[in-house]
Amino acid sequence: MPAYRLTDWLQQPTLVDITVPRPGPGEVLVRVAGNGLCHSDLTMHQIPAEIGATLGWRVPFTLGHEIAGWIADAGDEAAAATAAPGTPVALVSPASCGRCRYCLRGLDSACPDGLAGRGYGRDGGLAPYVIAPAGRGVVPLTTLDPVEAAPLTDAGATSYHAVRRALPRLGPGSWAVVLGAGGLGAFAIQHLKALSAAQVVAVDRSAGRRALARELGADEAIDGITADTTPDLADVCGAQAADVVLDFVGTDASIATGLRALAPAGAFGLVGAAGGTLRRGWYGTLPREAEIFTFQGSTIADLQDVIALAEAGRIRPLVDRFSLADIDEAYAALAAGALHGRAVVIPPT
Amino acid sequence: MPAYRLTDWLQQPTLVDITVPRPGPGEVLVRVAGNGLCHSDLTMHQIPAEIGATLGWRVPFTLGHEIAGWIADAGDEAAAATAAPGTPVALVSPASCGRCRYCLRGLDSACPDGLAGRGYGRDGGLAPYVIAPAGRGVVPLTTLDPVEAAPLTDAGATSYHAVRRALPRLGPGSWAVVLGAGGLGAFAIQHLKALSAAQVVAVDRSAGRRALARELGADEAIDGITADTTPDLADVCGAQAADVVLDFVGTDASIATGLRALAPAGAFGLVGAAGGTLRRGWYGTLPREAEIFTFQGSTIADLQDVIALAEAGRIRPLVDRFSLADIDEAYAALAAGALHGRAVVIPPT
Amino acid sequence: MPAYRLTDWLQQPTLVDITVPRPGPGEVLVRVAGNGLCHSDLTMHQIPAEIGATLGWRVPFTLGHEIAGWIADAGDEAAAATAAPGTPVALVSPASCGRCRYCLRGLDSACPDGLAGRGYGRDGGLAPYVIAPAGRGVVPLTTLDPVEAAPLTDAGATSYHAVRRALPRLGPGSWAVVLGAGGLGAFAIQHLKALSAAQVVAVDRSAGRRALARELGADEAIDGITADTTPDLADVCGAQAADVVLDFVGTDASIATGLRALAPAGAFGLVGAAGGTLRRGWYGTLPREAEIFTFQGSTIADLQDVIALAEAGRIRPLVDRFSLADIDEAYAALAAGALHGRAVVIPPT
Amino acid sequence: MPAYRLTDWLQQPTLVDITVPRPGPGEVLVRVAGNGLCHSDLTMHQIPAEIGATLGWRVPFTLGHEIAGWIADAGDEAAAATAAPGTPVALVSPASCGRCRYCLRGLDSACPDGLAGRGYGRDGGLAPYVIAPAGRGVVPLTTLDPVEAAPLTDAGATSYHAVRRALPRLGPGSWAVVLGAGGLGAFAIQHLKALSAAQVVAVDRSAGRRALARELGADEAIDGITADTTPDLADVCGAQAADVVLDFVGTDASIATGLRALAPAGAFGLVGAAGGTLRRGWYGTLPREAEIFTFQGSTIADLQDVIALAEAGRIRPLVDRFSLADIDEAYAALAAGALHGRAVVIPPT
Repeated sequence: MPAYRLTDWLQQPTLVDITVPRPGPGEVLVRVAGNGLCHSDLTMHQIPAEIGATLGWRVPFTLGHEIAGWIADAGDEAAAATAAPGTPVALVSPASCGRCRYCLRGLDSACPDGLAGRGYGRDGGLAPYVIAPAGRGVVPLTTLDPVEAAPLTDAGATSYHAVRRALPRLGPGSWAVVLGAGGLGAFAIQHLKALSAAQVVAVDRSAGRRALARELGADEAIDGITADTTPDLADVCGAQAADVVLDFVGTDASIATGLRALAPAGAFGLVGAAGGTLRRGWYGTLPREAEIFTFQGSTIADLQDVIALAEAGRIRPLVDRFSLADIDEAYAALAAGALHGRAVVIPPT
Repeated sequence: MPAYRLTDWLQQPTLVDITVPRPGPGEVLVRVAGNGLCHSDLTMHQIPAEIGATLGWRVPFTLGHEIAGWIADAGDEAAAATAAPGTPVALVSPASCGRCRYCLRGLDSACPDGLAGRGYGRDGGLAPYVIAPAGRGVVPLTTLDPVEAAPLTDAGATSYHAVRRALPRLGPGSWAVVLGAGGLGAFAIQHLKALSAAQVVAVDRSAGRRALARELGADEAIDGITADTTPDLADVCGAQAADVVLDFVGTDASIATGLRALAPAGAFGLVGAAGGTLRRGWYGTLPREAEIFTFQGSTIADLQDVIALAEAGRIRPLVDRFSLADIDEAYAALAAGALHGRAVVIPPT
Repeated sequence: MPAYRLTDWLQQPTLVDITVPRPGPGEVLVRVAGNGLCHSDLTMHQIPAEIGATLGWRVPFTLGHEIAGWIADAGDEAAAATAAPGTPVALVSPASCGRCRYCLRGLDSACPDGLAGRGYGRDGGLAPYVIAPAGRGVVPLTTLDPVEAAPLTDAGATSYHAVRRALPRLGPGSWAVVLGAGGLGAFAIQHLKALSAAQVVAVDRSAGRRALARELGADEAIDGITADTTPDLADVCGAQAADVVLDFVGTDASIATGLRALAPAGAFGLVGAAGGTLRRGWYGTLPREAEIFTFQGSTIADLQDVIALAEAGRIRPLVDRFSLADIDEAYAALAAGALHGRAVVIPPT
Repeated sequence: MPAYRLTDWLQQPTLVDITVPRPGPGEVLVRVAGNGLCHSDLTMHQIPAEIGATLGWRVPFTLGHEIAGWIADAGDEAAAATAAPGTPVALVSPASCGRCRYCLRGLDSACPDGLAGRGYGRDGGLAPYVIAPAGRGVVPLTTLDPVEAAPLTDAGATSYHAVRRALPRLGPGSWAVVLGAGGLGAFAIQHLKALSAAQVVAVDRSAGRRALARELGADEAIDGITADTTPDLADVCGAQAADVVLDFVGTDASIATGLRALAPAGAFGLVGAAGGTLRRGWYGTLPREAEIFTFQGSTIADLQDVIALAEAGRIRPLVDRFSLADIDEAYAALAAGALHGRAVVIPPT
């Protein structure tokens, strides 16, 4: 079968032909309906062997970690009990062990096993078939189209993880600021509106994404990050300032702007991996009693919740479909910021 | 009466003679038993008029914000109901309004009124008498000596505020790191041991303070912050790393060291006002799922709890007594790090 | 001025003429725009002197604890700072001290001072003027009609208090059951839809209230409490059962039915004062890991939130207006369950 | 090997000879060091076939659900990775699936799979060998004697589960009431002292258990439940009453007494299975804002924490050792309340 793979460290990924894998004990084989593309894919070719080794990655591997499809086979009887062949399923994106101190406390997003997984060091979903752990690695779908479910497994669930953590700080009358209204930010806006009575302001330099943000429920959308973003946010959020800022950009500018907009006792969640930091002293600059947090990925419970929201029509995945043959074009559109929704690659059947 | 006052912006505070104040409606007059000295006092003479104005401060004012004493008089009948004359009391250090969104949610440490208060822009406790708001501004003592209670109102309560916030992240087997075992850190060690089953490691460059830390319950005490502090902490806390780091130093070095020692999903509380920041990108450096927080002061509930701990003998204030006439000597010892406990100044009766 | 008063223990309340009160220090005088009627008013004439004394009540007193209006006067300068004359305000219904262990932790609904207050042992709002504590006793309105704001102060805020406590147990896909869709239940339905993605099923024996429940956002509304209510709820909520049950009825039947519908780790909030209990053994009958709670009243923060929701149009008070002269008719309609919304009595100007 | 088994419904369990089991895929074989006896074992012979079927139980089965021992064998490679043969381990007592909504949120004590497990419908630990799920079913020991670890798996962990849930309601100065100072209550007293600064009062009718309670850290121990228990508790806990009551008895009398002692916003945890209920109306009797909860068993995380406490010497299991041949004598002592610690049965090697 065709597969889009990192064949060696520091190489550009490419489409190659591999054999269809066979599930082992405790595993299921999933026919891929669609695989969402993620900004992190664009940096895979930059990872040196030493870093790969530290993370426990192996080359070659097939890219793609946002996957939904249908159960095709199972490696043993216990795995077969997960779901009948043909059942539509979303695959939990982060790997986790199920028994460390984090997994046992409902925080599997912090499991050390999450460093390597499908599409990052192990074979992922940019191919017609993929292997997944049975049981807790799989969330069954009812009415949802698996192609639309694919982006929920990372973009949808990661943004949900940020929103869920910030939620206790949002009351009626609160403002939540979403910095960056792209793949994850567009979901965050929807989650915030579905789960709270807070008002949401989106900040994005793209007029198209600002229009989309409003369409998805944002109460306000402003241009940024620019020199005017701080006064613009003050105009919108007023004296009380924002109780939550979720930063899907992650530059020096977005961090500084976000923190200036944050009220005491608010929450600032950093999700964007652009490498930014805060140049000023923390004491006196970080709003008092506020919470700064960052993370990668999401929990299985997050994905269950996000699937439930989508099945109920409370959130809407926005999908731009591409065939596996056109994957280079899809990544180019992602890199150029030219996508309307999340790019989902559909492999040949 | 004598009072140690900031007579004008950018002047060194000095002992001058003022009249004994009279309590207005809703106020009590308190005879000061003792007033603890705080590092923040040492910077009062550096504040320019513009900053003072922004904070709502007025000059001249008497310094001193760690105060306990006895009720001496009341401004009206309602205020008199707070406590009978002669009752020993600790005075709530941070000012708060009692009705903003923060005060009404039990987070009066974030009240905007906290910017100015007794000893920082208003008359404080370095004098025989001081005015305090009746009712919620006053915590009665039972068996505790007011001289020993004085440091509880800021050093004791501020360190408690940090510990209380971090507490849910500490389980049996957890390690808590206390960076800086001085005035606040020495209290934090005691609070951690009283309120949790966690193990505590103190980091301080002073051998005397490390010995004190062990005496107060720290399971380990190591030299630092040095180039070896990170490996030393790894030796102590092991693979799981520390679930809580409380930084009472607040330099670049302490922040970097503390974050390196922190486990995923842990808490890093910055209390030290040394102006440090993190030089590296936040994403990938801040431990995933962890919580970074900073604050100033404490809540009234914190002080009630701390008084209860001290009355029960669960924590022990360490006090170096000075007369008001010797205040310059007391501040010199504080600045030189030459104190054993908290310096408490006792005004003449 | 006319006032509807309990003139003595065990007497029916009646309209009498009293003098307009004058605010003391720390108090404001409020011209009443409207006062909502509450079921608890109907039992005032049954309270014997001994119970009244235990609660700290005094007779005579004017009934009415759901009050909004306009600031008319202030008792001193500090009180005058609360709001300018003419400002529309809602009055915090439960009394609280502002400095006990409950008030200082944001739980003023548990303050011992809440046993007596305006309309229950002190003069309330069924008169053209009423006295209220300045500052934290008053929540200013912006665009909201004070007549519509009146029921928010108790019916709106009490139901909100229940919803807010239960909220962490509701995720996407959860069901919340509201037993009784009258004055408080109708608000609870709206709060649940505004603050969560949960689905809501209302249970009421009145077809009119069931229709209203659906109009206010309930996903389902079923007849009950009858012998069929348990299977009907199982049909609606499915295998997972309800994660939250709020019981605004409070009979043996509603408690038993509600607990049977509750999932493990859910929350059952008892708000209805009908005196019901559970006849079966707790262990094995109460769902495992669930939380049972009951309370009276609400916090000041609850009222602020509810006002914010109403100002933003997220909840809608339903009001049936009556003049003070027609108060007996209004109470009769309340007792007969013949009201569409909350009865609000408008005193003469 | 000998095994103490329920051979059929409604029969008294008895010692019979069975073959040593062989672990299947995902399972380990454990040589039993000791198995603690539990009151619930005494009722196994009263369960009719219909109830057994509802719970998913099968007869015959070996009793015993408090088990620690040493890894003896593994059913497959993955299971072998759990721990090397000879490793001392405690076995997680409640069964759980690892992937339901409860398990994924760290609340595996509410997993539906918990209805049947080792010693309750499946073969348990009253035999030289027992089968356990690999991985998350096993907690390795370091210095702890497995005989002493056995009671931690149920008595220790169940009491910890109650304490952990109640913990946020305990501050310095709080009182916690432990009703019943037997197997679970004796652990609860130790957990409360290790994890909080609260004061603990134990209530038990046995003078021996009261003396033990004090030895284990209880600040007070009073006779009860008698007619005097309510005034006695009021004498101890004072005006503020108790913030937490944990009821390990569970009769009408203990529930009524416990609720009378509870402060507003406190927590009442029912752990005792004696079938009691509350005879009075809930509204007005249950303390306002309090939390009532009940549960069975504990989470895997609870057991990890309890093992950590015991390894660190913060809690002390009290064990009365019996040989498997003397099991009838051990149960008789349990039924008669004649044990000093937890009875642990040691099978022949």
